[in-house]
Amino acid sequence: MLRNIEGTGVVVRTDSPVKGTVALVSGGGSGHEPLHAGYVGKGMLSAAVAGAVFTSPARDQILTAINSVNGGNGVLLVIKNYSGDLMNFKLAEQLVSTSGIKVSHVVVNDDVAIKSRENRRGVAGTVLVHKIAGAKAEAGAELDEVKKIAERVISNMGSVGVALSSCTNPAVGKPIFTLGENEMEIGIGMHGETGVARMELQDADKIAEMLYRRVADDLELKRGDEVFVMINGMGGTPLMELYVVARKICDLLESDGIKRFRAIAGNFATSLEMAGFSLTLLKVDVEMKQMLLAPQTTPAFPVLV
Amino acid sequence: MLRNIEGTGVVVRTDSPVKGTVALVSGGGSGHEPLHAGYVGKGMLSAAVAGAVFTSPARDQILTAINSVNGGNGVLLVIKNYSGDLMNFKLAEQLVSTSGIKVSHVVVNDDVAIKSRENRRGVAGTVLVHKIAGAKAEAGAELDEVKKIAERVISNMGSVGVALSSCTNPAVGKPIFTLGENEMEIGIGMHGETGVARMELQDADKIAEMLYRRVADDLELKRGDEVFVMINGMGGTPLMELYVVARKICDLLESDGIKRFRAIAGNFATSLEMAGFSLTLLKVDVEMKQMLLAPQTTPAFPVLV
Repeated sequence: MLRNIEGTGVVVRTDSPVKGTVALVSGGGSGHEPLHAGYVGKGMLSAAVAGAVFTSPARDQILTAINSVNGGNGVLLVIKNYSGDLMNFKLAEQLVSTSGIKVSHVVVNDDVAIKSRENRRGVAGTVLVHKIAGAKAEAGAELDEVKKIAERVISNMGSVGVALSSCTNPAVGKPIFTLGENEMEIGIGMHGETGVARMELQDADKIAEMLYRRVADDLELKRGDEVFVMINGMGGTPLMELYVVARKICDLLESDGIKRFRAIAGNFATSLEMAGFSLTLLKVDVEMKQMLLAPQTTPAFPVLV
Repeated sequence: MLRNIEGTGVVVRTDSPVKGTVALVSGGGSGHEPLHAGYVGKGMLSAAVAGAVFTSPARDQILTAINSVNGGNGVLLVIKNYSGDLMNFKLAEQLVSTSGIKVSHVVVNDDVAIKSRENRRGVAGTVLVHKIAGAKAEAGAELDEVKKIAERVISNMGSVGVALSSCTNPAVGKPIFTLGENEMEIGIGMHGETGVARMELQDADKIAEMLYRRVADDLELKRGDEVFVMINGMGGTPLMELYVVARKICDLLESDGIKRFRAIAGNFATSLEMAGFSLTLLKVDVEMKQMLLAPQTTPAFPVLV
């Protein structure tokens, strides 16, 4: 169960602060629902901080979140690799550190559309960091252990997205970019950032294969590896179409001899009403698999068995 | 975990048939994803049967489902009130009855847009029948008890939907109806059936209030009643907008003195890529609340705590 701290944009577990466990705090701009508040609950985030649409939350909001959930065993901040988020989360980290709270952070940069690792944006894979690090924290691990598994997830994960339409920030009132009726944009970000290539629309199987090759190559997946699959809708794409994509991804994995641990398809990290989807693959190890299957009580993460 | 019975359109629990419990079977046309296969799992459906897009499954498909999950304690069919579904599910019921399988059915007709109860369509509320009857079956209840609680859910539940756009059956290739840029259609069905009123587009709060009044009046809700709330996206509406609607519905319940047991918002029973949403209210009693909170392991129903 969740509690909204009125007027702050912060949502926390009602049982906060939980003594004896590491607290996990994440956040970012609004417009990505159910990210981030949808992942607050036992076994995932302790608190989520929401900025305005596509805008980093302010330092003081993040401070409110940290102070509300700190149970004495430390706080891990899960930051996506955007300059605004980095600046405000790190400022908050510095401030609470001086007051004696044990705090650390990880930076999610799973968007393999961008070649240089340091410039890679954090996108839908962030949800899997929340799940796995959250389960580790819930199990009573220390801050450095929770941070370590979060970093292992980040370095074994890749995502790439495709847009069939742009999206409209309500504060602006017109689409961020425009796409022709028969065009699509590969490698888009979560905020209507243009992608790395624009091309003629193709059928779902072909698009799925294109994204799959890009992520699989980046992760250097090879026969015998095992992956967790997330097909993420960008907001305006119906589930039926996500399932068509999921089927193709599962077929491709099978023909490449790569084991599928579990696959989920749904709207996990959206860009307002954008049509399109992203593919995230996470190369899993034994501990990650345990953490993925650990129970959680959040509004938006599906039951995994 | 689920098993797809290749070539039949039937998805069952991998542990089927489960001895000693009543099996729950539902289904209908495709295009409503995650309905119905997304609700197969421990604590909900035993099997889901999918027809072509917006087309009832055939009798033989339903027979396959029943025969695959019957564990000896009987089978309850959850049918939505459409002529094709009624005909095929009842034909299957008659056939298996003659072979000695204990089987019965309930008919879901939660769409309060239509005045006459016998003509009311089964829409998103079907998911709550699956949840509550499924939990009752999982708890080991007999067929007549499972049927009884399913019927109690049906007679205490109302839904109504609004469309901001039509949807396109892929087999046809053009929208089923057309709506102007500034028009909306109230009381639409799940298959692109036109609604009961077309009117000028209004803001989300006003639409939410209009739908709320219609359902609350139909259920004759009064101060002190307690309801479960489902805000259901029709496929093309982003979650952020569903949350805006959910907030308004919660405010309205509060000002009417009606208790909110739990509220969920998401894409639970869609109409392909239609933009719009539906509101379902279920007047809950103690047993229904227990069954709603009972654990389940399906891909699409959210964790409730």
